[in-house]
Amino acid sequence: MLTPEITKRITDAVDAAFDRQLEFTAELVRHPSLRAEEASAQDLMFTQMEARGLAMDRWQLDEETLSAHVGYGPTTVAFEDLTNVVGTYTPAGPATGRSLILNGHIDVVPTGPEDTWSRSPWDAEIKDGWMYGRGSGDMKAGLAANLFAFDALRAAGLAPAAVIHMQSVVEEECTGNGSLAALQRGYTAEAVVIPEPEENMLVRANVGVIWFKVRVSGKPTHVREMATGFNAIDAAYTVMGDLRELQDKWNADKGSHRYFEDLEHPINFNIGMISGGDWPSSVPSWCEFDVRAALYPGVTAADAWSQIEACLRDSTSGAEVSAVRSGFFSEGYVLEEGSDAEGVLASSHQEVFGSALESFTTPGYLDGRVFTLYGGIPALVYGPVSEAIHGFDERVHVESVRKVTKTIALFIAEWCGVTETR
Amino acid sequence: MLTPEITKRITDAVDAAFDRQLEFTAELVRHPSLRAEEASAQDLMFTQMEARGLAMDRWQLDEETLSAHVGYGPTTVAFEDLTNVVGTYTPAGPATGRSLILNGHIDVVPTGPEDTWSRSPWDAEIKDGWMYGRGSGDMKAGLAANLFAFDALRAAGLAPAAVIHMQSVVEEECTGNGSLAALQRGYTAEAVVIPEPEENMLVRANVGVIWFKVRVSGKPTHVREMATGFNAIDAAYTVMGDLRELQDKWNADKGSHRYFEDLEHPINFNIGMISGGDWPSSVPSWCEFDVRAALYPGVTAADAWSQIEACLRDSTSGAEVSAVRSGFFSEGYVLEEGSDAEGVLASSHQEVFGSALESFTTPGYLDGRVFTLYGGIPALVYGPVSEAIHGFDERVHVESVRKVTKTIALFIAEWCGVTETR
Repeated sequence: MLTPEITKRITDAVDAAFDRQLEFTAELVRHPSLRAEEASAQDLMFTQMEARGLAMDRWQLDEETLSAHVGYGPTTVAFEDLTNVVGTYTPAGPATGRSLILNGHIDVVPTGPEDTWSRSPWDAEIKDGWMYGRGSGDMKAGLAANLFAFDALRAAGLAPAAVIHMQSVVEEECTGNGSLAALQRGYTAEAVVIPEPEENMLVRANVGVIWFKVRVSGKPTHVREMATGFNAIDAAYTVMGDLRELQDKWNADKGSHRYFEDLEHPINFNIGMISGGDWPSSVPSWCEFDVRAALYPGVTAADAWSQIEACLRDSTSGAEVSAVRSGFFSEGYVLEEGSDAEGVLASSHQEVFGSALESFTTPGYLDGRVFTLYGGIPALVYGPVSEAIHGFDERVHVESVRKVTKTIALFIAEWCGVTETR
Repeated sequence: MLTPEITKRITDAVDAAFDRQLEFTAELVRHPSLRAEEASAQDLMFTQMEARGLAMDRWQLDEETLSAHVGYGPTTVAFEDLTNVVGTYTPAGPATGRSLILNGHIDVVPTGPEDTWSRSPWDAEIKDGWMYGRGSGDMKAGLAANLFAFDALRAAGLAPAAVIHMQSVVEEECTGNGSLAALQRGYTAEAVVIPEPEENMLVRANVGVIWFKVRVSGKPTHVREMATGFNAIDAAYTVMGDLRELQDKWNADKGSHRYFEDLEHPINFNIGMISGGDWPSSVPSWCEFDVRAALYPGVTAADAWSQIEACLRDSTSGAEVSAVRSGFFSEGYVLEEGSDAEGVLASSHQEVFGSALESFTTPGYLDGRVFTLYGGIPALVYGPVSEAIHGFDERVHVESVRKVTKTIALFIAEWCGVTETR
């Protein structure tokens, strides 16, 4: 256990640097690190980690290596544009503590129509205690929290007594291949902290996600013969209805899935994108839509996918229906209760917040599954209060970020151990 | 009335040139004259008309002039890419007959996915009595029929005794602005023949058409909070349902519209294109779709549009719904029975087909409305048997084309009168 005096030195150090932390977070937000456009933001992360004396590693994701892994989801952009950044801290003396990965993803989702934002998604303005911007919550505040929590120890005259890998990965929003590539590269540890925007709580369990693109097609005709022509847009909605029946069936089974029993609607099939037809006066012959489906922990992606394929094969639409996987092909995970890592996080959180750490189940994808399922590493997905991630006017609560940063700093000190440097 | 001997000379001349007519039709089909890409096909029409000694006129459509006309539909492509071609025949001697416009449109609709065609849409292959290809029926066979019907008189040693304007226009498939521009340029006559693919029949009445693009939008969120997020793709489908209620209401009123009483479904609202959403794992914030709506003759486009706007304003979707006009803004027309022009066509048709000319009502747009409504010119929309126009494997029946060409040739001779040139 950290002494009250050390605890205070660390949390004071977070406070002392917090303005700079916000400035850095804002700078990160101002890099629009949309998918395959993460390079400049990764440059910034690289530079910042390097300036802290970390041993730097930056590499391009490799399709061949990744695709051999059961957790791989098909990447549909050029691999040339995808690089991970990892900076490694190694203690000067013997590593007496427990090793740690501080993980975060640099990629952000599209803004949607920018005119629906009340401001630019990239200006990172702070107003009424919230920092706005695409990626502010999901999860540049978390990436900055990792970095500045690490800084706080040094500023407090302390050095972690174990190896720490600071990771900035890509592809968390679409495949999870970034964290998977980091694991495949050999980065492992005794715990991982991922400060995703989680309402100051710990994620106990989450769903797996599969992305797929459905194509519905048939024979069109002139609109004057519409009664005889197949209408792919109408048929697509029928297929969506078929998929939602499968979704309802899976939701009805929530009682048999630990940690999901009390969620109102744990399994969401989201129709996120649609396109179809070539001409207003022709009955549309094709329609494609993109689906994000969720699955419970313990259900393999392969099993879920075969149910989805069967659903599409048996579609009531009467159309030709085909589907290809287009991203995530991931299982969910459960963070089993009672780990040492969770215990340390709980005490750090209690120290900072003055209240017990709560855990919850989240029906969204998290890279935590990579570490838990394939690395045997307890994944502590824990982070600040946010609103409207993936929506308009995404924002993160500034004081929550401060407290989360303090919690992570205390966690590092307790988990890794510290030596005095003064 | 034409003598049997002259009739035979003319129809024999059509037969004699029919192989060349098919070759020329195929050449036209091999020019993919998609919207705003009609130039090379118009070059060909220009050259062919010029070679026949017609006085040539080719001009670019003009937005300012067009948009002042009540029948204008907003053009959404560059006007620079849109030119009409008209060749005018003037008799050497006094014009003793009735003047005529032979009209056809050069533009074709998109092919849709080409792999759904059994062959290239542009190879114009003839198989089992049908010529295949996008535009084969709609309406390059008709453009060629106009030209070769005109040729047949000359080959038969006859010269028309009235002015004939041979028109190849653009924009028939999207706005009708091509024929409208020709009318505005001053081209008028006592009758117009438009050999659209009409099953060897005469169009008695047709619908007007309005094109518009609907945008449905709202506030999205992360899919994990899907219950709280607005889903624009779902909302779009609700709006489509609202529009179909309006469509049903209009169809229910068919009994009060002359020539439409007996059609099963005269009013079609076609959802021809759709797009929406930015990311599979974000609840979609926007969705746009393109609608082609039909209206009865006698209903002004402005009236129909105000009903459509009210329908969208009162949408049950709970979404923000807006719409812009994106093409056709046209009224339907009726070809009143008993015109001299129809009488002449009926006798020409009887002569060639050995059966009475039938007329029918077609629930699709036709440029006939330009001449009928705004020029006071009887529009004879009459042409060959086709299948799958606007669909896959569009085709036109070769022997039907031959007969239609003969009918048009006899019509020219009877309507315009002829003088012997031998």
